Amino acid sequence: MQFFSDNCAPVHPAVLAAMAAANATDAAYDGDALSRALDARFSALFEREVAVLWTATGTSANALALALLCPPYGGILAHEEAHIIADECGAVELQTGGARLIPCTGEGARLTPKGIAERLARIGRSVHQTQPHAVSLSNLTEYGLAYAPDELAAIGALCRASGLALHVDGARFANAVAAHGCTPADLSWRAGVDVLSFGFTKNGAMNAEALVLFEPARAEEARRRRKRAGHLLSKGRFLAAQLHAMLADDLWLANARAANAAAAIVAKAAGARLLHPVEGNEIFLRLTPAEAATLRAQGFGFHDMAPGTARLVTSWHHQAADVAPLAAALAAL
Amino acid sequence: MQFFSDNCAPVHPAVLAAMAAANATDAAYDGDALSRALDARFSALFEREVAVLWTATGTSANALALALLCPPYGGILAHEEAHIIADECGAVELQTGGARLIPCTGEGARLTPKGIAERLARIGRSVHQTQPHAVSLSNLTEYGLAYAPDELAAIGALCRASGLALHVDGARFANAVAAHGCTPADLSWRAGVDVLSFGFTKNGAMNAEALVLFEPARAEEARRRRKRAGHLLSKGRFLAAQLHAMLADDLWLANARAANAAAAIVAKAAGARLLHPVEGNEIFLRLTPAEAATLRAQGFGFHDMAPGTARLVTSWHHQAADVAPLAAALAAL
Amino acid sequence: MQFFSDNCAPVHPAVLAAMAAANATDAAYDGDALSRALDARFSALFEREVAVLWTATGTSANALALALLCPPYGGILAHEEAHIIADECGAVELQTGGARLIPCTGEGARLTPKGIAERLARIGRSVHQTQPHAVSLSNLTEYGLAYAPDELAAIGALCRASGLALHVDGARFANAVAAHGCTPADLSWRAGVDVLSFGFTKNGAMNAEALVLFEPARAEEARRRRKRAGHLLSKGRFLAAQLHAMLADDLWLANARAANAAAAIVAKAAGARLLHPVEGNEIFLRLTPAEAATLRAQGFGFHDMAPGTARLVTSWHHQAADVAPLAAALAAL
Amino acid sequence: MQFFSDNCAPVHPAVLAAMAAANATDAAYDGDALSRALDARFSALFEREVAVLWTATGTSANALALALLCPPYGGILAHEEAHIIADECGAVELQTGGARLIPCTGEGARLTPKGIAERLARIGRSVHQTQPHAVSLSNLTEYGLAYAPDELAAIGALCRASGLALHVDGARFANAVAAHGCTPADLSWRAGVDVLSFGFTKNGAMNAEALVLFEPARAEEARRRRKRAGHLLSKGRFLAAQLHAMLADDLWLANARAANAAAAIVAKAAGARLLHPVEGNEIFLRLTPAEAATLRAQGFGFHDMAPGTARLVTSWHHQAADVAPLAAALAAL
Repeated sequence: MQFFSDNCAPVHPAVLAAMAAANATDAAYDGDALSRALDARFSALFEREVAVLWTATGTSANALALALLCPPYGGILAHEEAHIIADECGAVELQTGGARLIPCTGEGARLTPKGIAERLARIGRSVHQTQPHAVSLSNLTEYGLAYAPDELAAIGALCRASGLALHVDGARFANAVAAHGCTPADLSWRAGVDVLSFGFTKNGAMNAEALVLFEPARAEEARRRRKRAGHLLSKGRFLAAQLHAMLADDLWLANARAANAAAAIVAKAAGARLLHPVEGNEIFLRLTPAEAATLRAQGFGFHDMAPGTARLVTSWHHQAADVAPLAAALAAL
Repeated sequence: MQFFSDNCAPVHPAVLAAMAAANATDAAYDGDALSRALDARFSALFEREVAVLWTATGTSANALALALLCPPYGGILAHEEAHIIADECGAVELQTGGARLIPCTGEGARLTPKGIAERLARIGRSVHQTQPHAVSLSNLTEYGLAYAPDELAAIGALCRASGLALHVDGARFANAVAAHGCTPADLSWRAGVDVLSFGFTKNGAMNAEALVLFEPARAEEARRRRKRAGHLLSKGRFLAAQLHAMLADDLWLANARAANAAAAIVAKAAGARLLHPVEGNEIFLRLTPAEAATLRAQGFGFHDMAPGTARLVTSWHHQAADVAPLAAALAAL
Repeated sequence: MQFFSDNCAPVHPAVLAAMAAANATDAAYDGDALSRALDARFSALFEREVAVLWTATGTSANALALALLCPPYGGILAHEEAHIIADECGAVELQTGGARLIPCTGEGARLTPKGIAERLARIGRSVHQTQPHAVSLSNLTEYGLAYAPDELAAIGALCRASGLALHVDGARFANAVAAHGCTPADLSWRAGVDVLSFGFTKNGAMNAEALVLFEPARAEEARRRRKRAGHLLSKGRFLAAQLHAMLADDLWLANARAANAAAAIVAKAAGARLLHPVEGNEIFLRLTPAEAATLRAQGFGFHDMAPGTARLVTSWHHQAADVAPLAAALAAL
Repeated sequence: MQFFSDNCAPVHPAVLAAMAAANATDAAYDGDALSRALDARFSALFEREVAVLWTATGTSANALALALLCPPYGGILAHEEAHIIADECGAVELQTGGARLIPCTGEGARLTPKGIAERLARIGRSVHQTQPHAVSLSNLTEYGLAYAPDELAAIGALCRASGLALHVDGARFANAVAAHGCTPADLSWRAGVDVLSFGFTKNGAMNAEALVLFEPARAEEARRRRKRAGHLLSKGRFLAAQLHAMLADDLWLANARAANAAAAIVAKAAGARLLHPVEGNEIFLRLTPAEAATLRAQGFGFHDMAPGTARLVTSWHHQAADVAPLAAALAAL
């Protein structure tokens, strides 16, 4: 059983079925009926009017979001281990036209109002220093932590007070919502989020993310930037179909809950090995090379991290029965 | 029956089947077995070693290709009606970091060695003038013309002599190959092409294009630029699967031949109405508003172009029986 | 006597004196007293509140101006022979982050409302086409023509009606003002101009241009972009001093009148040789290679243009007595 | 007496005289005799063939240098307090097209081979992580430390071994050379430096820096990038004249020695207050607000830094007699 990444997981059958059903002649790009229905569909989910653009990757969603929020001569605060800093090969710099990513620190890749405020205080306000225009955070964080609504709202309040926009990289947004049993609104606009990259690909879709704009007036610019970025797929109906399938009957939430539940089982078995609390579907733990080899010999796949540590990721398709052997193997180490 | 665009056409069943078959756990991004097999698969097709990157859109393929061939302070010659100038919202400028698209003219959106040479002659060589580094042309052209191997080779020779790289936007490359009954090699590297955007989406795939690098050493940079552009899909196996399905048993060629054959039937019926020779799967013709209305009343869908003209595009799924009613309707106008 | 370019002319003694006078300890960058006095000084000249930034080159003034007026995904209409298109090596693309320069045509490098309107009409409004955000024109034009206030106002009105900003490349703005005997206001904000590159270097300064913002709220962004562009000189007082010297006693106007007067003498002698009316300080004329050689043999320096044509530029330091020999030589050809 | 910055210092009389002497008609841009003589003049100074471009600011020199050494998708290691990170408002990002500045740490803003190696070791090599292409360091550092030739050579060796180019921000390069009594070659190409920003403006010039390319083949690209950046001044002879004046009779070295000597006097008086050794012309010291007020009441001007600290900068025009009162005042605190 593989626990490399939720990117490696299969696509949910309902998503595949929806894509097959979309295989009829329709308008190109995002002129099709499915794409045109997204704003309304997501507005219902978020309990307010939003504009939504599909895009095929989380990296493009993040970079386009930040291009809307920060000018080329501005800066974006993010955790130094944030995906946009550590794992997107300069995508934000490309789409923003060279904005600066300003690294912050924080336990478990989690930003705090205090940490943000301290970083802000170190930035001179003259024309010589890059001025911050936005904060970007990941929920789940890169170490699997889930900001709670009130934690996020505290950051949102600081952003408002500081004249900063707030972006959430929600590659695992569904897992965060599931973790806190709250609504999507609670972890986004109600907490002061301006733009959300709402990930579906890791959660059962094939290649569809939703760029959610809580200020719909931004959509015109966003759509032009998406085209310019080469991200306006010509048969966009197949991306829209994925999003509709994921929202139908709250499949997105059920999938996230399943992944979180599987992770909880593993976490319990990992016990004192855990490097971070397991709040979503990622498990970071101490594992010696010998222990890692032992697990791999039993057929478990996962990524090594810093020496002596490893990451395991559960996914929507992992049932309790699937992770039980892993939990047992961990306990037996 | 719709003739708006081959972007509106359905996905070929073999492609859908291949995608479904790829729905197993595998490595993320382009580390999966299908992606890793692309270089060899395309090298066989092109009769030489090539490196191939999948990407989800033709716009991204074109822009990434040109970013490899032209520095930010350089220029790219292309027809003034080329897709990269007229219909990609500045994608080339984004990926190249601000290179200049230098518009050329030519009948039917076709470049000629003479036209290129004349345009080159008008560019001063001092530091004040943007220097050309590449030529980009579309085959099929934006008006459906198909450069023949020798025509392309003449341009390739001029490029070599002028120190310019040569890129082909092959959104309908398959149709061009089918039109001339030649090999993919004849319309690419043998004619001096450095990088080819080989389109599959319009020809039966869902969202997969091949960026073909005839100098494989460029692949390292290309892969980093693709990631930076947000075009490295996390479940890339589903794009690779499409390309493999399209190459299997030369489906790409069969599909293109079908589309071309359908267009030929329509073209014959259109007769003197044609604005350009129909060499591939696009038909541009004179059509008064009244005539257009008459056709639409019979259920035929297509795009208006300049006043009094229209474009119809046939696709892989149009059989002779499908276009016969259109041909009859045109003849009856 | 040299007539290559007003860039080759000497610096006016009053400018040199002002620079020497500025050679005392003062604040760095633009914090010095001279720099801080520029807004008020230019506001008086323009009869309204303006914000002014010095910069060392016309190219930087133009590119920074357009970066304020056009987003990276937008386009800027300009004459195909405009300096920003033909002679600035992509500076606008760099500063705007890749905006598109959209070439227009017009006799003598002069834009007209009709020409602009026709070009606009050819641009589709969908997400696929780069949308125009600004018009940039040169006054004097690249062929030495001087837009009159009403001509400019007609273009300004079209821009307002079309939602476009208007920039003037005024490398020879002083010559245009002198040509029409109007005020600086008449050829700028009163005619609908948003940002003006007001050139002084060609007119007696050493390396100082004024970027004039008729909406002072743009200054904050402009100052940050100037720094980012490397154009915030650390001893800025020496640029400010030049501008003050040029404005004192309307030296800028006297210099421009002198240059224009000298050109008029040459133009009269050139007679039917003129390719364009001489409205400022540039003379474009027909000249066979043999004739050009004859003039050069007499010690006159100038640039060849298209075969059989030449450009001569007079400058602030050319007195009537200086150009009389040239006029005589031309008449004698 | 002011000790705010060497940017505030006057221009040396020899420089002013050379500029006045350049005030004759000559070719525009860098086609004049003075500009054309720079390569040879600097090649003699550096004891090898170099190509040199004048530019008006250190920021532009740095950003252009790094644009030559790092692609848009690459990264540049620099100290987190380096001027290019902390005080240039994103200039490097602009000129490189969005390359990433990767912050390193080190006492006194000094990089060490160990620190660089550790930072390198933390960067993954996959396509997801921005790959370093260059190291940039400041000599003097931002805290006035002077890398010695062997220290620099150790970094140069690491760069070569790691496939990284090496750039030196030499805004105070002259002070570093003076500090170590070595040759310019010792602190540049002999130590593995590829491109040097050789500052003159802080050291007695008005607005002229030399971008020194130790691989002259880079000059063609550098000249095009300079023009595109708006940094090709039209009357470039006045910048070239400054550089020639500074090199004549080693004025650059005499000026730097004077500034360093003045700083040494102040440093001796500051004693235990010093935050960093004073190796060049910058003094960083502990100073309570009350003490700072005391000094200011006596007419000494300087910048506050972090709370309880201050920076004083001596300059070429500070004689021993000029700094004696400051030294006395410091000793008397």
